[in-house]
Amino acid sequence: MSAEANTKSMSMIVTKGTLDWAYPPFILATTAAAMGVEVNMFFTFYGLGLLKKDLDLKVNTLGNPAMEMPMGGHHVAMPNLLAAMPGMTGITTSMMKDLMKKKGVASVEELRELAIEAEVNMVACQMTMDLFEYSLDDMIEGPQLGGAATFIEMATKSDINLYI
Amino acid sequence: MSAEANTKSMSMIVTKGTLDWAYPPFILATTAAAMGVEVNMFFTFYGLGLLKKDLDLKVNTLGNPAMEMPMGGHHVAMPNLLAAMPGMTGITTSMMKDLMKKKGVASVEELRELAIEAEVNMVACQMTMDLFEYSLDDMIEGPQLGGAATFIEMATKSDINLYI
Amino acid sequence: MSAEANTKSMSMIVTKGTLDWAYPPFILATTAAAMGVEVNMFFTFYGLGLLKKDLDLKVNTLGNPAMEMPMGGHHVAMPNLLAAMPGMTGITTSMMKDLMKKKGVASVEELRELAIEAEVNMVACQMTMDLFEYSLDDMIEGPQLGGAATFIEMATKSDINLYI
Repeated sequence: MSAEANTKSMSMIVTKGTLDWAYPPFILATTAAAMGVEVNMFFTFYGLGLLKKDLDLKVNTLGNPAMEMPMGGHHVAMPNLLAAMPGMTGITTSMMKDLMKKKGVASVEELRELAIEAEVNMVACQMTMDLFEYSLDDMIEGPQLGGAATFIEMATKSDINLYI
Repeated sequence: MSAEANTKSMSMIVTKGTLDWAYPPFILATTAAAMGVEVNMFFTFYGLGLLKKDLDLKVNTLGNPAMEMPMGGHHVAMPNLLAAMPGMTGITTSMMKDLMKKKGVASVEELRELAIEAEVNMVACQMTMDLFEYSLDDMIEGPQLGGAATFIEMATKSDINLYI
Repeated sequence: MSAEANTKSMSMIVTKGTLDWAYPPFILATTAAAMGVEVNMFFTFYGLGLLKKDLDLKVNTLGNPAMEMPMGGHHVAMPNLLAAMPGMTGITTSMMKDLMKKKGVASVEELRELAIEAEVNMVACQMTMDLFEYSLDDMIEGPQLGGAATFIEMATKSDINLYI
């Protein structure tokens, strides 16, 4: 990271790994990088999965009654009993992916690639790697390993800090 | 936004839209504004729904075993199988609204109105508007449209940044 | 809190109270404190429960399809219908506690104790205490009572602010 006097910087701690919550960190990272902001991303807990080579992100409406899909001019929430049925996570995931595609929103894979090209600094949480038994072979190339101290160190030097 | 030397500022990115998670951003916004802090709120993903004219916020205990309701001196969590039954989101929502009212906590609508009166700067995420097919007609008057760049711009100038 | 020119400070607003989400605030707090950072924690909503004398934290996979447990070299997610069955929150909680123990991760109780020893400043949200009918007798010794204004005041003076 350069230390130019006027360069702004942002550090994000990325803890969620569902299809919907994968978007905010990568959208913020790519947007900020395009604006000349130096960006750090620390992937931990379920967010660590966002670094996997093969992303298989899923979403389900359970526990989020605010999730409503646009349908023929209306907005429809899914009953919990239906959402809990076998196969519904797959169906909800497909619906959201289709919606994203139809609206021209980039995929998480594409946004992640853009973030790498923009030289966003990515750190994978060593403790989470150990805990959930992942190795660097499972992950895309680029991220370094680090711990909570790595995040705190980055955060003390950043203008914007976000826990996602 | 004025640029007085000593004025503090806070920017929040508001991503959740359930009844419980609607409170923190509006409580923080109105409190900070009352303390002379300049406040920006960027509503995106499920948080966008908090700008709708007619709020119909819901809450369900599914996936949140930490949610326990006070009952006759005890604290009771709801079994997931019960929470998933038809009608239970409505019942849980009513229980929480009744509890809030009994304890003298303002409604989300009231807090939002206070935030508007306090000249909190509200921005609705254009991408989310498009994605979930909302128009400005669905929303209260006041918020402007913006994108992730709008948030990053606000955040680089703020003393406090929170991802909610 | 001292006011040494070079001392960095961090304020966290802690809103979640499940077994998994109890870890990030206490890991960040103890790590930061060990690095000489002054730490404030404001416990509110479901996060207030993390201050209870007797912690009985739980976790369930409902609504979090990103939660996969390592099992014999694979990573396995739990079907929602199974996760909603009676007793499954207890089983999932035991699985995660066993995993943490096997990997040498400290318990939440131990991390909380370390945070107290490191003189992390803890504040319990008065409104949440009233709302969920808790008294200071239910809580560990140490935390003071405060409101949203207490958090805003701390946050305006902190280098790192996180909403957890």
